[in-house]
Amino acid sequence: MQAAIIHGDRDVRLENVPDPVLATDGPGSGLDAIVRVAASCVCGSDLWPYRGIDKVEAPRRIGHEFVGIVEEIGTNVENVRVGDFVIAPFHICDNTCLNCRNGWSVHCLHGGFWGSDPQTGGSADAGQGERVRVPLADGTLVVVPGRPDPSLIPALLTLSDVMPTGHHAAVSGGVSKDSTVAVVGDGAVGLCAVIAAKRLGAARIVAMSRHADRQELARQFGATDIVPERGEAGVAKVKEMFDGIGPDVVLECVGTKESMDQALRSARPGGQVGFVGVPYGGPLEVGTMFSSNVGVRGGVAPVRNYLDELLIDVLDGTIQPGRVFDAEMPLSDIPAAYAAMDERRAIKVLLRP
Amino acid sequence: MQAAIIHGDRDVRLENVPDPVLATDGPGSGLDAIVRVAASCVCGSDLWPYRGIDKVEAPRRIGHEFVGIVEEIGTNVENVRVGDFVIAPFHICDNTCLNCRNGWSVHCLHGGFWGSDPQTGGSADAGQGERVRVPLADGTLVVVPGRPDPSLIPALLTLSDVMPTGHHAAVSGGVSKDSTVAVVGDGAVGLCAVIAAKRLGAARIVAMSRHADRQELARQFGATDIVPERGEAGVAKVKEMFDGIGPDVVLECVGTKESMDQALRSARPGGQVGFVGVPYGGPLEVGTMFSSNVGVRGGVAPVRNYLDELLIDVLDGTIQPGRVFDAEMPLSDIPAAYAAMDERRAIKVLLRP
Repeated sequence: MQAAIIHGDRDVRLENVPDPVLATDGPGSGLDAIVRVAASCVCGSDLWPYRGIDKVEAPRRIGHEFVGIVEEIGTNVENVRVGDFVIAPFHICDNTCLNCRNGWSVHCLHGGFWGSDPQTGGSADAGQGERVRVPLADGTLVVVPGRPDPSLIPALLTLSDVMPTGHHAAVSGGVSKDSTVAVVGDGAVGLCAVIAAKRLGAARIVAMSRHADRQELARQFGATDIVPERGEAGVAKVKEMFDGIGPDVVLECVGTKESMDQALRSARPGGQVGFVGVPYGGPLEVGTMFSSNVGVRGGVAPVRNYLDELLIDVLDGTIQPGRVFDAEMPLSDIPAAYAAMDERRAIKVLLRP
Repeated sequence: MQAAIIHGDRDVRLENVPDPVLATDGPGSGLDAIVRVAASCVCGSDLWPYRGIDKVEAPRRIGHEFVGIVEEIGTNVENVRVGDFVIAPFHICDNTCLNCRNGWSVHCLHGGFWGSDPQTGGSADAGQGERVRVPLADGTLVVVPGRPDPSLIPALLTLSDVMPTGHHAAVSGGVSKDSTVAVVGDGAVGLCAVIAAKRLGAARIVAMSRHADRQELARQFGATDIVPERGEAGVAKVKEMFDGIGPDVVLECVGTKESMDQALRSARPGGQVGFVGVPYGGPLEVGTMFSSNVGVRGGVAPVRNYLDELLIDVLDGTIQPGRVFDAEMPLSDIPAAYAAMDERRAIKVLLRP
């Protein structure tokens, strides 16, 4: 079968790789499943190794967002059946350990991330390929009832990562009914954070964006205001919009030092930053936090814990996060998909096998 | 009258200063009060300039914790009467502005801190003296009903700062019923954080302390466990005590980089650090926060907002934070009071005029 391999800076290739097979010995044997991918996509965080910011030591599988149909299951798999349409979170988890039960499945004591096998520590399948072996299938996979309408596949695919990650920003920021919110970052995660803030009852949502197409999508998702300014000017503008003190919550969905500083300095005294941008660029000024009482909370999203709740809203159309995909390509065009995201010609590219 | 003046490194002197007088012109006139100090004390944060870590540019008044009796009031003061016994928070506030109404009186739009006048920006009285002019007296001061029994004065004095600051750590950390908690720091604030965690319903409270007298006081205040180890060993010990993953909440009550790192690495995945130690020592590792989902929240405590609630519990004896004072001296011995705290011979020194 074919799957994406990253070799180094701006070098992702579709290559022939061994077909996945169910594990037959070792600690994870009998607990896995093989999924035929119906759709996958490229994540903003895939661009870190693509751009050479994360060094690629050796060629490796890449991709962590996919949905598909179960083709085979291990002998001890109980929650997933052959033929089920499933969503795979960007992390592997048993959904039973202490961290999973606490609501933190992304920190599962027996889990891990696509591309490495949490049971053996060795290499494993990742999401951008034709088929994927899923470790701990009972814990990891979420079954979509019935056979979803093809038009829903983009929205279901966002449940692998960007929609629950945007939701995690909003939950970490403490967004609730009548909150005032600013969102830093207009990528797919930032746009999903707008959806999440609206869904949690925010009264006013400011999208920080300077791109007309993303501004328009943010408005459709529930943004009440758009601020194109950044940095100091962005902080000043947002403070001014909220009685001179700033909004209750700022959602940081970029990950640079500049975006985090902007978020931290935009929130009102005693406010909160919910952050989900993978941090590249340096530490947090704790003195600023101390003198403003602005809290900071966030990180890798516990996708599995959020999935049941968000799936309901996707299936009934309450939220439409699938609209963050503004391009679709066959898996064979994967170099072009990465280039389109790298050059910001696309918000997010959906890949069909 | 006499008041404490800090001149430089380890140089605090009691000196003759002008008697305070009510302001008769300018924006704050008519809104202030003169309080005769019944008791004041030395704060851990007073040791930063005393130790030369905060540079003292010119001799200035010092001290920000006091209780006393109102001697004079401005013409527009309504909530405070001559003869009232009052508690002064470590910050000045009007208790009516947007930040005050949001619960963040320490960020009052018209307030400030002892030693400088928030209305004029000029020099003003501080807490370690015989009498103090209190700006914005209606907002700042809290009246204790009746005339408190002298035995209650130490506990009432802790309501100026250390008790609400310990409470702020616990609130910022999200301590609630059945929380598991570790407290980093065994100074007066750390000990008050133990009281606060117990008061908010924590199921288990670990005090990190290597001093027998402080360990004993922590136990009396509600600590269920004592851990003398610090740094890596402290983190490992605390993780191990809570199923290998750590407690829900860690309260950071020191302010050094080491103590903050220890706090951040001790909390369970998805846990929370509530911090109130004045940060000296460098920024926060946001990468550690991201990969663990441990949130960090805290800062200068909004004392005025917490006072009504905590005062009730002090008056009825539910909490006894006055026991953090293990030494008492006359104001004239103020150099000795600073030395005793600096050399850790005393947890906290109470000063009587």
